[in-house]
Amino acid sequence: MGRANKSDIPDAPAPAVVLVRPQLGENIGMAARAMLNCGLGELRLVAPRDGWPNPAAQRASSGADSVLESARVFESVADAVGDMTRVIATTARARELTQRVVNPRRAAEELRQWIAAGERGAVLFGPERTGLQNDDLVHADTVLSIPLNPHFSSLNMAQAVLLVAYEWSQAGAVPDETLVTNTARPATKAELTNLFLHLERELDESGFLRVPEKRPDMVRNIRAMLQRARPTEQEVNTFHGIIAYLATKRRRG
Amino acid sequence: MGRANKSDIPDAPAPAVVLVRPQLGENIGMAARAMLNCGLGELRLVAPRDGWPNPAAQRASSGADSVLESARVFESVADAVGDMTRVIATTARARELTQRVVNPRRAAEELRQWIAAGERGAVLFGPERTGLQNDDLVHADTVLSIPLNPHFSSLNMAQAVLLVAYEWSQAGAVPDETLVTNTARPATKAELTNLFLHLERELDESGFLRVPEKRPDMVRNIRAMLQRARPTEQEVNTFHGIIAYLATKRRRG
Repeated sequence: MGRANKSDIPDAPAPAVVLVRPQLGENIGMAARAMLNCGLGELRLVAPRDGWPNPAAQRASSGADSVLESARVFESVADAVGDMTRVIATTARARELTQRVVNPRRAAEELRQWIAAGERGAVLFGPERTGLQNDDLVHADTVLSIPLNPHFSSLNMAQAVLLVAYEWSQAGAVPDETLVTNTARPATKAELTNLFLHLERELDESGFLRVPEKRPDMVRNIRAMLQRARPTEQEVNTFHGIIAYLATKRRRG
Repeated sequence: MGRANKSDIPDAPAPAVVLVRPQLGENIGMAARAMLNCGLGELRLVAPRDGWPNPAAQRASSGADSVLESARVFESVADAVGDMTRVIATTARARELTQRVVNPRRAAEELRQWIAAGERGAVLFGPERTGLQNDDLVHADTVLSIPLNPHFSSLNMAQAVLLVAYEWSQAGAVPDETLVTNTARPATKAELTNLFLHLERELDESGFLRVPEKRPDMVRNIRAMLQRARPTEQEVNTFHGIIAYLATKRRRG
């Protein structure tokens, strides 16, 4: 996967990702990579510990350079979100403030709606070990909590960014199942029926369906199983060949 | 956070995670951590490059020791999934086999339904740079593709595990599709393999697979189609009968 460039960031409006007081450059780079994987390109950094730019971030971004190159740096959370109308803060544990808490899926749905309505949204992520503080949270209208195993929850910052970015990319998206058939087209029901008839003819001749009372059920069950495979035209042809060779032909190489 | 122990892995049945030919111990450790974050605890390793146990994996697991300690090692994918009735293979790109492709959300929903119905499920992840090969994919009835930015998609193995495990943890329980099997239980992958071998034996004898250069592809395609049907134990038995009767007819003829 070569270097990503500005055209790799989708044009459509999307939330900004704000890393608050990030510590390790490597984590910033990995967060940038997680973002770009999921079609997010706008990164804002608040008071990065090691300054900016950061070579360690570049090394860890593995081609997500465009995100790092267009990243903006701010001194405070207030500055970083001033132009936003919606801010969601991610937090691992309950705080004392009274705020509405959503999960990543709900947050993504809301972001989609707000942004479609012309608003500007951002998601805040806190420093690696301490997370966001109350003074950070107070800039958000919504808190996002990633539901994890209560006995073991230890996502790092880039992983949290990945999950939120992923939910964004999935919110209101495409059909979730396709049949990858490459060049083969699905068989028509008529073609399937021909296959069934061929098979049943040979099974009758071979004696497999010789018990009259059982024949209807056996035939139905076999047909049901083959239907479930949703064969392509090519597979139907192959199956015809299988039946023919098993039942009648013997040809040596 | 401290060391996780066996009680940190939820009791309820859940899919196994199968890492096929994993290369770096560090990635195995990170995958274990991603699993435990999302409540998954059953890890299977197929021919790990550096053997097992692996100190690099332990160091990278950051407390997800319980997952590593209970991990099982197998020599082949077939061995690793023999007891499973549903196997989902993750892949980054389209392959030549005709298989049904789902996204992680759909895969998680289906896993929830199948497991609630008493089936055993597993998700396969391939080696870091090459991914799963066709010979691996043929053990799966379903392929999972994570929809990413088409201009930039480069998840590492642990991130892929995280997203799939995360979807599992989020998947609701309302089934919108079930396989009505009445009293028949789904066939295990080992039973399917026996069926394949029976069919291929007879196809070899009949000359259907007589062209050596074409045999591997033909075998894979046939297996992929039968995998898609997700046969029950009963259907596998019926199929054995079909093969036997047709073959006997040929030999008599």
